[in-house]
Amino acid sequence: MYSADEIQIIINNKFKSLIFDGEPIELYAPISYTLGIGGKRIRPNLLLMACDMFGGNVELASDTAIGLELFHNFTLIHDDIMDNAPLRRGKDTVYKKWNSNIAILSGDTMFALAYKQVIKTKTPYLQKILEAFTKTAIEVCEGQQLDLNFESLNGISIKEYLEMIRLKTAVLIGASLKIGAIIAGANDNDTANIYKFGENIGLAFQLKDDFLDAFGDENKFGKKTGGDIVSNKKTYLYLKAYEIADEQLRKVLSDYYKNSFDNINQQQKIDAVKAIYIQTKVNNHIEKEMNAYYQQAINYINKISLPDSKKEIIINFSNTLMNRDI
Amino acid sequence: MYSADEIQIIINNKFKSLIFDGEPIELYAPISYTLGIGGKRIRPNLLLMACDMFGGNVELASDTAIGLELFHNFTLIHDDIMDNAPLRRGKDTVYKKWNSNIAILSGDTMFALAYKQVIKTKTPYLQKILEAFTKTAIEVCEGQQLDLNFESLNGISIKEYLEMIRLKTAVLIGASLKIGAIIAGANDNDTANIYKFGENIGLAFQLKDDFLDAFGDENKFGKKTGGDIVSNKKTYLYLKAYEIADEQLRKVLSDYYKNSFDNINQQQKIDAVKAIYIQTKVNNHIEKEMNAYYQQAINYINKISLPDSKKEIIINFSNTLMNRDI
Repeated sequence: MYSADEIQIIINNKFKSLIFDGEPIELYAPISYTLGIGGKRIRPNLLLMACDMFGGNVELASDTAIGLELFHNFTLIHDDIMDNAPLRRGKDTVYKKWNSNIAILSGDTMFALAYKQVIKTKTPYLQKILEAFTKTAIEVCEGQQLDLNFESLNGISIKEYLEMIRLKTAVLIGASLKIGAIIAGANDNDTANIYKFGENIGLAFQLKDDFLDAFGDENKFGKKTGGDIVSNKKTYLYLKAYEIADEQLRKVLSDYYKNSFDNINQQQKIDAVKAIYIQTKVNNHIEKEMNAYYQQAINYINKISLPDSKKEIIINFSNTLMNRDI
Repeated sequence: MYSADEIQIIINNKFKSLIFDGEPIELYAPISYTLGIGGKRIRPNLLLMACDMFGGNVELASDTAIGLELFHNFTLIHDDIMDNAPLRRGKDTVYKKWNSNIAILSGDTMFALAYKQVIKTKTPYLQKILEAFTKTAIEVCEGQQLDLNFESLNGISIKEYLEMIRLKTAVLIGASLKIGAIIAGANDNDTANIYKFGENIGLAFQLKDDFLDAFGDENKFGKKTGGDIVSNKKTYLYLKAYEIADEQLRKVLSDYYKNSFDNINQQQKIDAVKAIYIQTKVNNHIEKEMNAYYQQAINYINKISLPDSKKEIIINFSNTLMNRDI
């Protein structure tokens, strides 16, 4: 089996071998730019680790692995238009650096390029792989639409929020692992279990993101905390605090989320909302929820008909992501 | 073999059987709406006719045929955002009826749904089909980007214009026929020739569109002519007129295309530009070009190793589209 470092090297080399220098340049420059900014490449890592775990050919699966990363990056390009987000990973977003039209169209192209990568893999399971990938692509769109809807909705339940992040984030983690397993020829039971492992880990990852956005160490985090609070994002922390708060505190919380603040008062807003989070002890709640998803994930991977030693790399990789402070 | 009417019925029934009523509604309502507005369904018709011509299973191919129509409609939804187009087929465009975000995201979903349809077809040629489809999807994006670029560029040559419409329109016509042939198990030579037939017919169709937009019979056309002139679209007619015109006439033409006009003066602009088209006899040129592409198309279909009787339905269908006055 490959070590995590070896898998990462395979992915990096594969990315280096892909050159997106087609014409017209307006279409391909944003694609190169987006992929050049980096990212943790979580999805292709998981895909190849799952493929390797089930004894599949990692080199063969690497085209599909890259395809899932292209898909993920396509969704980021389009999401950034919809969210009016000027920055991603500290750099200008595509729509900001170029314009919305170029962001729409280079995103569309990247979506097609994702399929181009996925279908490169010579495998008897192509239809199954594409069914999993396409179902997930549709779900990710549904998740993003729910996220947009929630911006202007009040009274979203935590259950609804969790369903939104399941669709927007977790299913693609699950599908990456599942597709790796399918390429390796894993049986349906194992394939379903690795998917559920990924889905639950994905939910835990997203809750970790919510937590870090408010309570991350700014020095390690590399950016200021409180971004979700500034943009009035109704994360798990906000919804749970609102659930726990008494009427008076609820009013304070929702008033902060109703208004936009200038730069000076933004810090005051962040501090005030975080104080409510601490007062309502929502960090305990999110930690409990996160651990519950993590434990669910472990339950699913335990069901897989392979010796524990084969599962170590994926579990360790997931632990690293769970325990990250950035 | 199926008649053209029978093929149309198969497509209509297939569309009726598909219900896009998923959640969230904001994502699926625009998809139902777009498909409900109609259209000539040229691409699925051609796909099934090609499949039938080569002796394939038309029922089996119908899912893929619908997939190509979904793809085409996805591109229209996104193009309408980029072009600020308020109307399509006499109805509000998606971005106008809802908003840009919903148009971006329901378009993305429709792109994924197109793949969902294409991969439904049980065939040993799935990889080949997807290679053709995905290559075409990328080319259509490239064509749209060129079209956007041309808006603000002067000195576009007719050659560049033809390459743009080849990518934006013709390759998808070619791919529809090619994919129908692949599903039927046609050999590589025949598949390549039916593609080239479609590509050339597609170019002829687009030139016909350019012609009708300026010189169509308004009563039959169902809309006012001159839309391309109002929106300063550098079509074949414009570029050819500019090529032929002397310096003085060129200045008149490019001045008309530099400015926007209010409603009253729009008609004056249309009349003036059309008068230049007539003066420079560009309608003769476009007809010649159209016929040359049509003849090329016929040359390619003639090379296909099937009796002429098998080719009649596709040729007749293409003739109808070539001779349309709407």
